[in-house]
Amino acid sequence: MQRDLRGDEALSFLLVGDLVGVAVFAASGASAAIAKRLDLFGVAFVGFVAALGGGILRDLVIGAVPPLAFADWRYAVTAILAALAVFWLHPQLARLRRTVLVLDAAGLGLFTVTGTLKALDVGVPPVGACLIGMLTAIGGGLARDLLTGEIPVVLQRDIYAIVALGGAILVTILRELGLAGPLPMTAAAVLMTGLRLVALLRRWSAPIAVP
Amino acid sequence: MQRDLRGDEALSFLLVGDLVGVAVFAASGASAAIAKRLDLFGVAFVGFVAALGGGILRDLVIGAVPPLAFADWRYAVTAILAALAVFWLHPQLARLRRTVLVLDAAGLGLFTVTGTLKALDVGVPPVGACLIGMLTAIGGGLARDLLTGEIPVVLQRDIYAIVALGGAILVTILRELGLAGPLPMTAAAVLMTGLRLVALLRRWSAPIAVP
Amino acid sequence: MQRDLRGDEALSFLLVGDLVGVAVFAASGASAAIAKRLDLFGVAFVGFVAALGGGILRDLVIGAVPPLAFADWRYAVTAILAALAVFWLHPQLARLRRTVLVLDAAGLGLFTVTGTLKALDVGVPPVGACLIGMLTAIGGGLARDLLTGEIPVVLQRDIYAIVALGGAILVTILRELGLAGPLPMTAAAVLMTGLRLVALLRRWSAPIAVP
Repeated sequence: MQRDLRGDEALSFLLVGDLVGVAVFAASGASAAIAKRLDLFGVAFVGFVAALGGGILRDLVIGAVPPLAFADWRYAVTAILAALAVFWLHPQLARLRRTVLVLDAAGLGLFTVTGTLKALDVGVPPVGACLIGMLTAIGGGLARDLLTGEIPVVLQRDIYAIVALGGAILVTILRELGLAGPLPMTAAAVLMTGLRLVALLRRWSAPIAVP
Repeated sequence: MQRDLRGDEALSFLLVGDLVGVAVFAASGASAAIAKRLDLFGVAFVGFVAALGGGILRDLVIGAVPPLAFADWRYAVTAILAALAVFWLHPQLARLRRTVLVLDAAGLGLFTVTGTLKALDVGVPPVGACLIGMLTAIGGGLARDLLTGEIPVVLQRDIYAIVALGGAILVTILRELGLAGPLPMTAAAVLMTGLRLVALLRRWSAPIAVP
Repeated sequence: MQRDLRGDEALSFLLVGDLVGVAVFAASGASAAIAKRLDLFGVAFVGFVAALGGGILRDLVIGAVPPLAFADWRYAVTAILAALAVFWLHPQLARLRRTVLVLDAAGLGLFTVTGTLKALDVGVPPVGACLIGMLTAIGGGLARDLLTGEIPVVLQRDIYAIVALGGAILVTILRELGLAGPLPMTAAAVLMTGLRLVALLRRWSAPIAVP
């Protein structure tokens, strides 16, 4: 499997996917920071953390130090440029809200797949790998909300983390079956993205406890 | 010492103790999440973090990756089941408040003992090991409060962390004296649990600074 | 370079500088904790985190476990004593506000230099090392603000993190040029301290996004 996914073509494909996810999550962080009237540095920083916090947590937990966010400059630079773009362009971006939601759903799928696979690759058992895959996808958003003084939205409403968890389980099963090549993994990411978008369109939500 | 504590019997004993602590801390996290009207996922997540956040921090700091919370599925499953049980049963649980406080005090003792011993085992010097033992016990509660938008209660009132710190120092001294077998360690955990309960009953509190 | 900086004299010099930074950042954490009416333990804990949180994050990210804060007792003891001193003496300390701001600016310079150098020493590439150097300097303040329920001040106003980032870039360039001995590193720290103080005096601030 390793070889399949890390062939040159698959690698570039994964890298581009990863960087698109980073840019979108950075934009979500930057938007939250602007709404709280943080300054230029705060916008860049919250963008960086929203984009790369989940991956940094993943890498710390699996012992991959320094985390990719610090080891490969393309990640940090992509996150910071995306955040700065939002800083300068945000009045025009309001019209792009739908696009951002679609890209965010794509990021959810991509980060879950790469996070789960990386954890399995270093020998984390299945239950742990599923949790790590999910944390990769939701960790940045959690950190973004904590930095801007909010209770994390992913804990309050929306079918988001549960899509990541289900997707991580699917990825783990596929890999056990020897189906961890680019095609099934892309299908898993697309499935998660689709589920997330349907959940948004239909306004699905998880139950809260009876009082 | 290693051999004493890791004999099969002592190991099961420690594991059961650890899992009871995990379940109780998960219940405290779930209760806090329900009070903030988080959804089903939020309740499970805050429960997981309250139960396992301290141990994850401990394992990251001592370089034991992946942390036990991801390496041994029994920890995550115990935490999540306990949180879900609180989600479904919480109206009936109000009557159990006293039981929960006693179990929480037991978790405080157990997590401090295991956290301090693990740090000493990997060669962390005494002062650092005491701090890590204390962080193991209070880290989950800190994370629970941050996720639910509260200033951590352990920093505001209650004799809680100071019991953990004192207990960690006791564990370190006992181990230096060659007394790290199951019996003295259990005694240390029971002593901490007792102190915590007395502090609750007598409403002891730490001073705050004069204005 | 290693040898230059780690000669006995340079080492003591660096250690003293580091501990002064620790004490000052601990005092800032303790002050914030007192303002929120946290108890004695809370004041000591927030002081510890404000002083050592940035360094702990740095060491986790570069894989130096256990982090210096736990491996060398002088760091923890300095932080806790400084926090307790503020707890007991804080009414008299109001007069020292200017001194504290100068020392805090010195801490900013010192932590950026040591953080960046440590990251470069373990082989982190330049962009990552600059980010880690900056995080070493601002991480403690971020954690202090999160623990006391505030949106981090470093994200909202003040020229602070940007000085750290600029300083980290300077340190990286100097080291590439083979100029990482005590003298140029001290000059870099002094330059950052000076810039920070000028920014304070002139009330420089970073832009916020147009609404």
